[in-house]
Amino acid sequence: MKDHTPELLESFVSREEIFNGVIVHLVRDTVTLPNGKHATRETILHNGAVAIVPLFEDGTVLMEYQYRYPLSRVIYEIPAGKLDSPAEDTRAAALRELREETGYTARRLTSLGYYIPSPAILGERIEMFLAEELERGEASPDDDEFLCLERRPLSELCEEILSGRIEDGKTQAALLKTLLLKRGFPQ
Amino acid sequence: MKDHTPELLESFVSREEIFNGVIVHLVRDTVTLPNGKHATRETILHNGAVAIVPLFEDGTVLMEYQYRYPLSRVIYEIPAGKLDSPAEDTRAAALRELREETGYTARRLTSLGYYIPSPAILGERIEMFLAEELERGEASPDDDEFLCLERRPLSELCEEILSGRIEDGKTQAALLKTLLLKRGFPQ
Repeated sequence: MKDHTPELLESFVSREEIFNGVIVHLVRDTVTLPNGKHATRETILHNGAVAIVPLFEDGTVLMEYQYRYPLSRVIYEIPAGKLDSPAEDTRAAALRELREETGYTARRLTSLGYYIPSPAILGERIEMFLAEELERGEASPDDDEFLCLERRPLSELCEEILSGRIEDGKTQAALLKTLLLKRGFPQ
Repeated sequence: MKDHTPELLESFVSREEIFNGVIVHLVRDTVTLPNGKHATRETILHNGAVAIVPLFEDGTVLMEYQYRYPLSRVIYEIPAGKLDSPAEDTRAAALRELREETGYTARRLTSLGYYIPSPAILGERIEMFLAEELERGEASPDDDEFLCLERRPLSELCEEILSGRIEDGKTQAALLKTLLLKRGFPQ
């Protein structure tokens, strides 16, 4: 990777606040393009988020079914959640979200790196974590959060990703990474 | 995967139009939750998109550097673009975006399945394609689209994904899938 910032940079000129809701904070910025012209950038500001691969010693992963209204259907995905503030520690947030959604706590948490969901319009970065040495406790989902849990072998889940049956993006990236980190690269 | 729709379904009650811009179309819907309570869902409507892994016979992939304003930096990613309408054929869109952004046409196009970037707020689904048997032509990027191209070995790119240096989500999912489809699962 090279540094192409000088020839690609877009510079901030001004901001118009469009909507600041419960989740979505939308602004319309005017920027200067590399050719000197102006353009507008509709941008959703975001505190960031975490996603967690809860991996048991038997090679199974704890998965969630959640109804995702923007897609009008149930999505099969790993646990995840937003940071409470941009400054929140991502490891603390990962442990909190895992506990709230599944009841489990992890004694070992390894970063799997970041994941940018939608760079054209969304300022979100998700830090992905591998959670191991899990201990069962009690889940405490938010009042308007409904989900079903299921344990499935990592290898089966990765086969479902390859065959296109698991569509959630962070789930694809985090589970395939976990498989390759645990088993090494195919030759 | 099981069908958990009955116990997780959120039903549409009403819609409020918030903003309909050049890219972002934001609505605030009221829904009924599985417990009968009402909640609001801030949702960005989206036509869908395509992302393309342009793979050459020598095992290199054509990558792009693009300044992504919401992240305030240059992102390293595979070619991608929005559908012109929800009804647009995704294969035609993939060939169009590949040609516009890179100048290449592909004689072989294989679906890698779908990728959902951000299911909590964004209705977007991206169909990922593997593009092979590439022929060079002339790129014709949009007027306000600036990008730099680079060919890199797929295996090197996947190592950079594992080490966390490539953060774009669709790029992680599509390149790791391509590696596993071409080489098979690690044992």
